[in-house]
Amino acid sequence: MKTVYVDNNATTQVAQEVLEVMLPYFKGRYGNPSSMHSFGGNISRDIKKAREQVAAMINASPSEIMFTSCGTESDNTAILSAIHSAPDKKHIITTRVEHPAIKNLCEHLSGQGYRTTFVPVDNKGRLDLDFLYNCLTDDTVIVSVMWANNETGVLFPIEEISRVMAEKKIFFHTDAVQAAGKVPIDVQKVRANMLSISGHKIHAPKGIGALFIRKGTRFSPFLIGGHQENGRRGGTENVASIAGLGKATELAVQHLEEETVEVSRLRDRLEAALVRDVPSAIINGDRENRLPGTTNISFEYIEGEAILLMMNELGICASSGSACTSGSLEPSHVLRAMGVPYTAAHGSIRFSLSRYNTAEEVDYIIDNLPPVIARLRNMSPFWKGQQVAAKA
Amino acid sequence: MKTVYVDNNATTQVAQEVLEVMLPYFKGRYGNPSSMHSFGGNISRDIKKAREQVAAMINASPSEIMFTSCGTESDNTAILSAIHSAPDKKHIITTRVEHPAIKNLCEHLSGQGYRTTFVPVDNKGRLDLDFLYNCLTDDTVIVSVMWANNETGVLFPIEEISRVMAEKKIFFHTDAVQAAGKVPIDVQKVRANMLSISGHKIHAPKGIGALFIRKGTRFSPFLIGGHQENGRRGGTENVASIAGLGKATELAVQHLEEETVEVSRLRDRLEAALVRDVPSAIINGDRENRLPGTTNISFEYIEGEAILLMMNELGICASSGSACTSGSLEPSHVLRAMGVPYTAAHGSIRFSLSRYNTAEEVDYIIDNLPPVIARLRNMSPFWKGQQVAAKA
Repeated sequence: MKTVYVDNNATTQVAQEVLEVMLPYFKGRYGNPSSMHSFGGNISRDIKKAREQVAAMINASPSEIMFTSCGTESDNTAILSAIHSAPDKKHIITTRVEHPAIKNLCEHLSGQGYRTTFVPVDNKGRLDLDFLYNCLTDDTVIVSVMWANNETGVLFPIEEISRVMAEKKIFFHTDAVQAAGKVPIDVQKVRANMLSISGHKIHAPKGIGALFIRKGTRFSPFLIGGHQENGRRGGTENVASIAGLGKATELAVQHLEEETVEVSRLRDRLEAALVRDVPSAIINGDRENRLPGTTNISFEYIEGEAILLMMNELGICASSGSACTSGSLEPSHVLRAMGVPYTAAHGSIRFSLSRYNTAEEVDYIIDNLPPVIARLRNMSPFWKGQQVAAKA
Repeated sequence: MKTVYVDNNATTQVAQEVLEVMLPYFKGRYGNPSSMHSFGGNISRDIKKAREQVAAMINASPSEIMFTSCGTESDNTAILSAIHSAPDKKHIITTRVEHPAIKNLCEHLSGQGYRTTFVPVDNKGRLDLDFLYNCLTDDTVIVSVMWANNETGVLFPIEEISRVMAEKKIFFHTDAVQAAGKVPIDVQKVRANMLSISGHKIHAPKGIGALFIRKGTRFSPFLIGGHQENGRRGGTENVASIAGLGKATELAVQHLEEETVEVSRLRDRLEAALVRDVPSAIINGDRENRLPGTTNISFEYIEGEAILLMMNELGICASSGSACTSGSLEPSHVLRAMGVPYTAAHGSIRFSLSRYNTAEEVDYIIDNLPPVIARLRNMSPFWKGQQVAAKA
């Protein structure tokens, strides 16, 4: 069966070029970079190169890049480092639409003597900046705001927020897991203290991430062990994946323009056709400030899970909300924060495209999804009730 | 140049069979196991299989295995979970010869309101069990004792210790990173609450580990995020490496007997020849209870680093102490804990063999190392002084 994979915010395929960079480490090049012998020691040069590649993607200095095991580890490290570096302060600020790696950690810390403010968003998923700025206090230890929302693709004004925080000397972290490699990031302009990156969202393998730590920012290690990563993270370096992440960031920079233009065009074509062909299809989130490849569409009065299952039969792989929160019957916390009505939030589908998607794939979805929605609605008492009410 | 890699306690080559299991995930099989669609969802079956394979190696139940990003993360998780699960208790017991992933974390916690007892070892690296049992208090929150020492290969009587701790209902963790896959481990006999495993010590890739968490043991997550690993560790699963670790543990079980017999034989042959051909060569650690492939030999009155550099010229890759502590000019904390004199500790070399080493490689070392030692000693004022003193 044909597979049309439009779930790239959940995870991406490893680029062929990335795999080629990784393979030598699974064959002859297996030394430990901490070893004294050149068989291992030479490998530290490869890590240095990858660090330069990742740094280049965000205009950082290589010494400001620390490799981690994933975006979640980057996020956890940033938050915990900030609070351990300023133990007298007990107020955390984040948003109501963060990824679980931030949201669940902040909720956990709320049970540990911390007070967390979750800044709301409006019905387009835009952050309430006045609310954010007004809740800053002398007790605020960290402000953590995601760059791009994983479910809607909505981009927050991180540059502006970071400048305000830099002026007020408040520690600022941004979870850029969905943004890095998809939109331009320049840490010379964005004054974040820390910034999280994940490999598997940008065609590197799963199990590798990075954390930007601005020079001069106090740091408290999360993983404590050996002297690796300049004493900032214990544990033997995941050399193959580090090299893969380096290559993936280099490719992301090369493809950034294409991704913005081509992937946006495909996404817009999909979106326009679905809104045209399916009644009561609503696009969730600010269409002006969005990731190029993401669209989140509510098909009112039917269940997202039912849509996903029927799409699955057709080989179309998308998602309802985040993979990291799937399995829950509750509608997405992101859409609830946006005030999307229950009847629409339950029927929301995220399509997330990458540079590997084609116009043919988009057309396949355009041809096949509207009849699926129609069929499901024919079985939905909510939809029928709605139609009767509309006619009355 | 010929490469003779005898640094397998630092890291190992990925087995060909392991690479074959991993490759599909870097190609078409890239879905996120948390996804609703079968393209991703099918992959959770592969994780289930790997969990069964790892569990089988230590006779655990699959639900008792949690995947981590490395041995250091497994160790950190165990210690922090234990102390967070019993916040009123403030006494940690470990040994003076642990890996930095335990040692440095415990030293860090000592600055955070915890009291740590480091149990000593004798001159053969054997743990002082009376000391250990006598320092247990009602305030003891965790006892963490490594299974096999990474520098000397000395095995501690973990089964006995675990029984004592189980009787006294004291949380017991063992860092089995160097032991797992090299000696038999049966968690039905060894009553540890948690046990750490690392992939890259047993021919799986770097960047993957596991933690055994006995059923009924309270657990507090280290990485907080999504619902992965049964809610015990956030972060998208590193599927390729998880599958690789599963295969590597299966291979380890298959090769365990061979490894014990053949690898011990090679190690013994190397050891006997070096002690025979090099004056003042001293084997460090208990030869009765040791890993099959490890020998730690002190070549008195010369510097280990000089030996390593000259071996490196010959393509022989070994190490002085642990890769995770290399770069330090201090002699190994393990050898110091054993009371090895400074003049010997500084000249200690660890040879660690795997099933991939051959008799020819061992002979190459036997033929080439003694002249290197002789040459270095000819340049060593300490050695010359010693010779003069001996003749006087």
